[in-house]
Amino acid sequence: MTWNRKHLLDIESLSAAEIMMVLDTARAFKAVGARAIKKVPALRGKTVVNLFVEPSTRTRISFELAAQRLTADVINFSAEASSLKKGETLKDTARNLEALNADIIIIRHSASGAPHFLARFLNASVINAGDGAHEHPTQALLDTFTILEKKGKIAGLHVTILGDILYSRVARSNIWALTKLGAKVTLCGPSTLVPKIFEQMGCRVTHNVDEAIADADIINLLRIQHERQRKSMFPSLGEYTSLFGLNKARLEKTKPDALIMHPGPINRGVEIDSEIADCSRSVILEQVTNGLAVRMAVLFLVNGGKGPQEIAA
Amino acid sequence: MTWNRKHLLDIESLSAAEIMMVLDTARAFKAVGARAIKKVPALRGKTVVNLFVEPSTRTRISFELAAQRLTADVINFSAEASSLKKGETLKDTARNLEALNADIIIIRHSASGAPHFLARFLNASVINAGDGAHEHPTQALLDTFTILEKKGKIAGLHVTILGDILYSRVARSNIWALTKLGAKVTLCGPSTLVPKIFEQMGCRVTHNVDEAIADADIINLLRIQHERQRKSMFPSLGEYTSLFGLNKARLEKTKPDALIMHPGPINRGVEIDSEIADCSRSVILEQVTNGLAVRMAVLFLVNGGKGPQEIAA
Amino acid sequence: MTWNRKHLLDIESLSAAEIMMVLDTARAFKAVGARAIKKVPALRGKTVVNLFVEPSTRTRISFELAAQRLTADVINFSAEASSLKKGETLKDTARNLEALNADIIIIRHSASGAPHFLARFLNASVINAGDGAHEHPTQALLDTFTILEKKGKIAGLHVTILGDILYSRVARSNIWALTKLGAKVTLCGPSTLVPKIFEQMGCRVTHNVDEAIADADIINLLRIQHERQRKSMFPSLGEYTSLFGLNKARLEKTKPDALIMHPGPINRGVEIDSEIADCSRSVILEQVTNGLAVRMAVLFLVNGGKGPQEIAA
Repeated sequence: MTWNRKHLLDIESLSAAEIMMVLDTARAFKAVGARAIKKVPALRGKTVVNLFVEPSTRTRISFELAAQRLTADVINFSAEASSLKKGETLKDTARNLEALNADIIIIRHSASGAPHFLARFLNASVINAGDGAHEHPTQALLDTFTILEKKGKIAGLHVTILGDILYSRVARSNIWALTKLGAKVTLCGPSTLVPKIFEQMGCRVTHNVDEAIADADIINLLRIQHERQRKSMFPSLGEYTSLFGLNKARLEKTKPDALIMHPGPINRGVEIDSEIADCSRSVILEQVTNGLAVRMAVLFLVNGGKGPQEIAA
Repeated sequence: MTWNRKHLLDIESLSAAEIMMVLDTARAFKAVGARAIKKVPALRGKTVVNLFVEPSTRTRISFELAAQRLTADVINFSAEASSLKKGETLKDTARNLEALNADIIIIRHSASGAPHFLARFLNASVINAGDGAHEHPTQALLDTFTILEKKGKIAGLHVTILGDILYSRVARSNIWALTKLGAKVTLCGPSTLVPKIFEQMGCRVTHNVDEAIADADIINLLRIQHERQRKSMFPSLGEYTSLFGLNKARLEKTKPDALIMHPGPINRGVEIDSEIADCSRSVILEQVTNGLAVRMAVLFLVNGGKGPQEIAA
Repeated sequence: MTWNRKHLLDIESLSAAEIMMVLDTARAFKAVGARAIKKVPALRGKTVVNLFVEPSTRTRISFELAAQRLTADVINFSAEASSLKKGETLKDTARNLEALNADIIIIRHSASGAPHFLARFLNASVINAGDGAHEHPTQALLDTFTILEKKGKIAGLHVTILGDILYSRVARSNIWALTKLGAKVTLCGPSTLVPKIFEQMGCRVTHNVDEAIADADIINLLRIQHERQRKSMFPSLGEYTSLFGLNKARLEKTKPDALIMHPGPINRGVEIDSEIADCSRSVILEQVTNGLAVRMAVLFLVNGGKGPQEIAA
């Protein structure tokens, strides 16, 4: 099998084999990251644009470094002080970037579907770096990569995602990736943030955290975006922490080899106890490292790379 | 003839032969942009600084990409949060950048003459990326390049510039370039924005749009900066659109091969109907592509490049 | 002797021999800056992060250019709109950057000791680009480099630092460097900004400017940060200028070959008369040029460079 997609818009439309090809390619690039000279010339002379209409330092930097390590030229375009502020449409902004011979446009946008919209009319490749509450495909790929690397498999594992599911593109992309690869997914959190309708995506939904984590192989904690949701969705941060936060007492009731994951940035003392974030079962920083490899893989593949066999050993 | 200017400060002081040399060099660089690896090593080890005291995302990115494709190192210096905010003079800021071994300083500034001021004391090359209402030479060069490419000549063509002429550096630079190359220029817009005094620059001035566009080979629409001018210069945006906006009815009265140009970002539904912006006679996006080639040419020439014959085929 | 420090956290812990090794290495890199192609491949494939939690355009650009000239990949991370704003701890931010395989993290922070804190848990190299009122080691190194280049020696020279000493990391780092290398240091300024306790660092403290500069070989003027200190620390800017500003009358009472230094950005007409800033005895812009060479040296050494002998001639 060879890769033949020009865009990476979501996980929903990928096959299990395509997901595995990204992970296999990422594995080859992770080895590059361990070399003294962490660069390959795969995208030399190509132009990658980070079109971040919604701000994000950490995802932007991860993509920027991934592009640099592929020897691409990278331009950062943020919404502040840009032509978007002058009333230009997103379509015109994107077509202008393409007119500058951009080869790949990485877009983060607060509107669900923005990357799909761009892909309909651009010749450049489009990568979704998070669109509204819809999808964040590279996050799901790096999470899946991390699970596979640690556990040696995905199929048959039990993954519990804990926190704000309703507004989370990370949750949606993870659900797609994990169920396609044969994992069992449980969602847990306050009933306002974890509605029963998610069962239609093939998940178990529960509001009882002890039940959710008891036999989990992976516990993926989502960030409580307390800036936004606290007031309407749950009574207080303290109550969230007491009912759903991962603390030592709860951790003791989990499987001894259950992994702790979190897409970051973490709120120490809110959704996760500080010492649990730093314990040996936490793979939070390895997720960050793997994100770089996964993003190199995605940039490489959408630019015409055929698969891991092409990456010089 | 060989190029021997260290700076590009304006169009006014260029000869027709110099303008043509930039365009010829840009043509060679446009071919580079179509290659799989869009880079040449012409400015390797050189430092280019984007000193944007007035914010501009699109022009800054165009220069940044142009410099990257010449393999230069690029630094972006914006006025916000910089030493300029701490009360440093523009002269001191520029001399500090030069002390960092900057080879080329690209300046955008709200004060007319700021680039000329820098050129008086800097050893580095200075490129004007727009100074107040004075000049925006690379915009005029890319507009001229686009016309030449599409029409095969400049001399004898009739170019109508429509909109806010009074405050427009784009208009002034275009007038200089077009008249030097032998085109006939008509200016049109509300009388508050298109005063008769522009006739002294060798243009025809009219406030009747139908008359202005009737026999034009090129219609160059300027952006109505409604954030700034609406209140004092014309009664309302709606009135501007109805009196001067390019719509379907007006387009039908123009020559069938008249080109539609716009420096962007466009206000769809204000100075231009949305469907006209996207029609086959619109070359708005090609202007953007050509801007990159023109800026590569300018960077190359002020850095000591002799002309198009030096660019490897 | 070979360099064997992984971090550059302060001047206080360096030996005189280590300081001299940085200066010797910087001299070799200054020669590189005079070449047509101002680059060396020493840090190719390495990732340098500018983690500027406190904003600074000029120091950030100097480090960015230094890293580019060593062919490193550089990422700028500023506190605004970043995960730090979302409540992430500095430790987590730094560990995330390290997880992205950052090799060198350059940190500026308003808290004294922030770089030392990072160095305790990071495997990446840490360079202090200014921490609170504590130290700004690369500024002291570039100041020392400039003195050595101009005077041919440091030992035995008399250096007067004039201005706001109390809040100045530049002053503290300079005092350490100069006294270690055998210079005699005098501090002068208003008694609120130059307390007697600095005598414990081996300096002479005086509040009489004429006495302070009379036999100085070097007069290093610090910026009056009038945004911050004016109100509480001295009656008015005008009074400061009249009592401590370096003007023509005062300059005439100094040694004819005394050098005028300033870390910038300068306040013309406040701590320094405009014409003195531009006179032949002022080396303010050479300090900027030397800063680039010193920062290349520091990046090179903390990354495992052994010393100046390694830099290709």
